[in-house]
Amino acid sequence: MEDKSPKPIRCKAAVCRAAGEPLTIEEIVVDPPKAYEVRVKIVCTSLCHTDITVWQAKVAPVFPRILGHEAYGVVESVGEHVEGLAVGEAVVPALLGQCDQCPSCVSEDNNLCTAVPVSLAPVMRRDGTTTRFRDAQGNPVHDLFAVSSFSEYTVVDVNQVVKLDPSVPPQIACLLSCGAGTGVGAAWKLAKVEPGSSVAIFGLGSVGLAVAQGAKMCGASKIIGVDLNPDKEKISKTFGVTDFLNPSQLGTRSINEVIGEMTCGGVDCSFECVGVPSLVTDAFRSTKMGNGKTIVLGLGNDTDELRVPALELLFGKRIIGSALGGIKPKTDIPILAAKCMSKELELEGLVTHELGLQEINTAFELLLQGKSLRCIIWMGK
Amino acid sequence: MEDKSPKPIRCKAAVCRAAGEPLTIEEIVVDPPKAYEVRVKIVCTSLCHTDITVWQAKVAPVFPRILGHEAYGVVESVGEHVEGLAVGEAVVPALLGQCDQCPSCVSEDNNLCTAVPVSLAPVMRRDGTTTRFRDAQGNPVHDLFAVSSFSEYTVVDVNQVVKLDPSVPPQIACLLSCGAGTGVGAAWKLAKVEPGSSVAIFGLGSVGLAVAQGAKMCGASKIIGVDLNPDKEKISKTFGVTDFLNPSQLGTRSINEVIGEMTCGGVDCSFECVGVPSLVTDAFRSTKMGNGKTIVLGLGNDTDELRVPALELLFGKRIIGSALGGIKPKTDIPILAAKCMSKELELEGLVTHELGLQEINTAFELLLQGKSLRCIIWMGK
Ligand SMILES: [Zn+2]
Ligand SMILES: [Zn+2]
Ligand SMILES: [Zn+2]
Ligand SMILES: [Zn+2]
Repeated sequence: MEDKSPKPIRCKAAVCRAAGEPLTIEEIVVDPPKAYEVRVKIVCTSLCHTDITVWQAKVAPVFPRILGHEAYGVVESVGEHVEGLAVGEAVVPALLGQCDQCPSCVSEDNNLCTAVPVSLAPVMRRDGTTTRFRDAQGNPVHDLFAVSSFSEYTVVDVNQVVKLDPSVPPQIACLLSCGAGTGVGAAWKLAKVEPGSSVAIFGLGSVGLAVAQGAKMCGASKIIGVDLNPDKEKISKTFGVTDFLNPSQLGTRSINEVIGEMTCGGVDCSFECVGVPSLVTDAFRSTKMGNGKTIVLGLGNDTDELRVPALELLFGKRIIGSALGGIKPKTDIPILAAKCMSKELELEGLVTHELGLQEINTAFELLLQGKSLRCIIWMGK
Repeated sequence: MEDKSPKPIRCKAAVCRAAGEPLTIEEIVVDPPKAYEVRVKIVCTSLCHTDITVWQAKVAPVFPRILGHEAYGVVESVGEHVEGLAVGEAVVPALLGQCDQCPSCVSEDNNLCTAVPVSLAPVMRRDGTTTRFRDAQGNPVHDLFAVSSFSEYTVVDVNQVVKLDPSVPPQIACLLSCGAGTGVGAAWKLAKVEPGSSVAIFGLGSVGLAVAQGAKMCGASKIIGVDLNPDKEKISKTFGVTDFLNPSQLGTRSINEVIGEMTCGGVDCSFECVGVPSLVTDAFRSTKMGNGKTIVLGLGNDTDELRVPALELLFGKRIIGSALGGIKPKTDIPILAAKCMSKELELEGLVTHELGLQEINTAFELLLQGKSLRCIIWMGK
């Protein structure tokens, strides 16, 4: 009888060998999926700022490592005990898990599944090991979020595999799995933006623009975009921003003063998408008394401290930290994908570049230079 | 024909003539209620830390002034356009208004009615004036929150008058109008404490003990009380605290470390009831990842800044500022009063002293020395 169990696969991957150095395209070996694991053939992936942070070794400096955590692919093979996922099915590997059984998963407003650890450091899998990758010399190569999508194949825990309708375009599914999902989710799930409400978005990169789309989808009538880059005015308006403010052009007036005047006392919800602590304070001060919400999405440094005036908080204001915009991957990514298909959400504009895996270092340069929003890296290109 | 319109009333009040000096019991004149106003005969009132703050002139130093904002009384007379309130009916004057028509009142989670200004400084009323009190020399005496309950009679805007079932005990109604209502509301309305959940309360004064009762009412199974005063252990347990922690007796371990161990990762909700910024940080760090909520109730100084670690916030934590515990006075005080009547809520233990108006300075001393929780001041005593 023929042994049909999955075998190791030799394939190409972009390996980060040292902090800040160009990735090298190498032939690696990807182990077969173990129990409760799925091996995914990556179709496309995109580059997110978190990959840059890890690449620069600002946190968790372990190398060699395969980065990448926004991706779309198809099931190549499955390990024991994997149910409901068949070879060839369209999936998104998610950086957060969803076991649907732990207290967090059962809770309506908690998306940090306690059954699946999440860390920027290498993550322990169910069998006590941390990676399924080896390089040509047989040495282990670390992974990222147990996703590591800068590889033609990767092995992901079944709790982190989101099944999708095969008609969803790969690049849309890919974007939803992190940056765009975070932005839309922050408006939809965390701020719970209401029809007719006002929002302010600080920082109009991919995440901020996705917040604008999320706010528009929820029916916000005033969407104020704030960015120091004047070029952001035009593009942000295609994402639903109704009013653009450049803080450097307000003379002696502060940004929260101007937003307060535009909205008769402050916005219902503000979003900080940059990761600058003083901007969180500005965003907070731009919200209205009573129940104004500040959603914090950006992180500059691990040790950053956020500061808000106590007296203002005591007028009923709220601050909410975003982990993946509050979305539960298996539940919400398919919902958001359907909204993209029906054009309720329009995220295509986030894709500014498309490259092949061989050109991945160009994607890093474009993002570092602020020239791209999202660069899709196609494995087959 | 006899003129039945309300006339000025001469009565006794405790007047604060200068910052930090004993109040003087004086005969004052209380004007008749104007349009949309109600003159209330105060039955009892109690002393709250906010009265002390204003008395010490830490904020809004204007004198002479009549303090007091936790009270219960009966309608003495009503001005034009006042509907649904008859002479002799039981009422609570509330420091927050509720017009039931503005966007805040219509919103489910906003209790800062925009039709009624709220400030520690004298508040402008509908007719453009700020007080209904004059002293024996005919000079105006300022009010507080347009309530000023340290007087036998006071005039309150109809939006700030809560009608109550006459069977509610006066002292319970009085407590619910500020301190106890704030504590219970913070657990019930802001944290939305869930059955079986865990909470930590920092500071076990009146507000903190009311939080414990609120958390118990909502079904919390673990209620951790934190206070530097060892005497608080015994009394807090009568309010529902299940575990008492004295931060000075933890050796080298931090309070959030100990709470994290006791709850496998942090409480669902924590409450800061003292007004010390570093305690807000401790309370925040004691909450769990995913959706841990920190409710801030205390305010030390007007200029205090609160600080939290950004990275922890980004794991889905939330911070909520409390204005009167999120309760809408007209809607929620009657609900809480009913829960007191049915013993779902037990707040009687907050009343540690009862005095007459003549002895009001003793009430100040007791609260300043930490010897009282709530002192009820009976007007007829
Ligand atoms: Zn789970
Ligand atoms: Zn990402
Ligand atoms: Zn209102
Ligand atoms: Zn008070």
